[in-house]
Amino acid sequence: MKYLLTISYDGRSYCGYQKQKNGVSVQEKLTDAASALFGDGTKITGCSRTDSGVHAVAFKATLESENAKIKPEKLPSALNAHLPPDISVRDASESDADFHPRYSVKEKEYRYIICNSSTRDPFSEGRAYFFPKKLDAEIMNEAAQSLVGKHDFRAFMASGSKIEDTVREVYSCTVTREGDNITVSVRGNGFLYNMVRIIVGTLIAVSDGKIAKDDIAKIIESKDRKNAGPTAPAEGLYLYDVKY
Amino acid sequence: MKYLLTISYDGRSYCGYQKQKNGVSVQEKLTDAASALFGDGTKITGCSRTDSGVHAVAFKATLESENAKIKPEKLPSALNAHLPPDISVRDASESDADFHPRYSVKEKEYRYIICNSSTRDPFSEGRAYFFPKKLDAEIMNEAAQSLVGKHDFRAFMASGSKIEDTVREVYSCTVTREGDNITVSVRGNGFLYNMVRIIVGTLIAVSDGKIAKDDIAKIIESKDRKNAGPTAPAEGLYLYDVKY
Repeated sequence: MKYLLTISYDGRSYCGYQKQKNGVSVQEKLTDAASALFGDGTKITGCSRTDSGVHAVAFKATLESENAKIKPEKLPSALNAHLPPDISVRDASESDADFHPRYSVKEKEYRYIICNSSTRDPFSEGRAYFFPKKLDAEIMNEAAQSLVGKHDFRAFMASGSKIEDTVREVYSCTVTREGDNITVSVRGNGFLYNMVRIIVGTLIAVSDGKIAKDDIAKIIESKDRKNAGPTAPAEGLYLYDVKY
Repeated sequence: MKYLLTISYDGRSYCGYQKQKNGVSVQEKLTDAASALFGDGTKITGCSRTDSGVHAVAFKATLESENAKIKPEKLPSALNAHLPPDISVRDASESDADFHPRYSVKEKEYRYIICNSSTRDPFSEGRAYFFPKKLDAEIMNEAAQSLVGKHDFRAFMASGSKIEDTVREVYSCTVTREGDNITVSVRGNGFLYNMVRIIVGTLIAVSDGKIAKDDIAKIIESKDRKNAGPTAPAEGLYLYDVKY
């Protein structure tokens, strides 16, 4: 049987989704929980890697096991009984045999939360980027519109990445404020390594007066990482939704 | 100099606001931070005790010190530099010499968050009461209206409390749902020990069919703790606002 799982996790305690030699991964915790239920040979495949400290509201993964004959609606509670409190399976459904959680992705949405308060908010600790200097969400939102469309986003990729095809389509990019929290939401068909965090760092630099609002298009054209803003820290980033 | 501080804290790691022999208190952390800035003899006085694990969005406390000559607007950052990430001074203003953060209170607002989802939400862990069985916020809100007014709330006080005057006035009590989160907001001139948590436990029992919606008035009249619902856990409770 093959199931599609929707998983939320607080990434603070993990080296990321993907199994790694150093550090505990979300994948490892999921595999342990699934193996406890269905024995060895249970396979978990995720929709994406996420960096250390990055969170997920609706990460997607498949669970495959010959021994798994449980009804999908019973699976979340069964797995959660074997998972730590910072990882939770929120939903499960049956999945086609040829479905791949990574290669079948049509759209992903990331959200980035900036705690833009003059003083620290204890409830945002590790779950938002604390930026005390006042930001202008409207100007950030205007600048963000230049990112929408099909572009070569090489300037917004971590330097050293070895991916050759750096063309991606951004469907929407919006910046909104609610109280002290600024949310950057980016939807697209795929993202380069650190792309969302570099977008956020660049939009902050726009509000901060370090990059001109109208220069975003030029930065994209330059294909040079040095022209974009800094990479915003991992703690504000959430994989928010994945569509197939 | 005497200052009035507004403080947010995540109560998970503390035995409560008040200094105690066993466990680390918020008051202790605040006193340590203030003493680091202004030396011994610095006095912190809080607006209320809060139980172990209870949170605060806007706890009020005064800071008194002969050596404190800092401008109020500089005080939050100065204190936060000496505080752990789960406690933050959000605001400071000058305070009159005769002002008392506890005896001068005119109104307090508590909020209680219930995570009413069939599966755990990692982002609510320790910050909301996870109650997987579906609750009806509208019925809870209707039942809550019987609590509004000046009543003897002895039935909603932890048994064993030795307070004699158990009359309090509740200004409003509302129950609202937003997605999976149900918020119970209670405003009043003062609260008995565990009163908000017993109110929440009772409203949950109403939705759960264990207490009739129209019986709240009778429970108040009975003045008997045994007739009210169970005490909801500390993790969902927030001291939200204090007015003078």
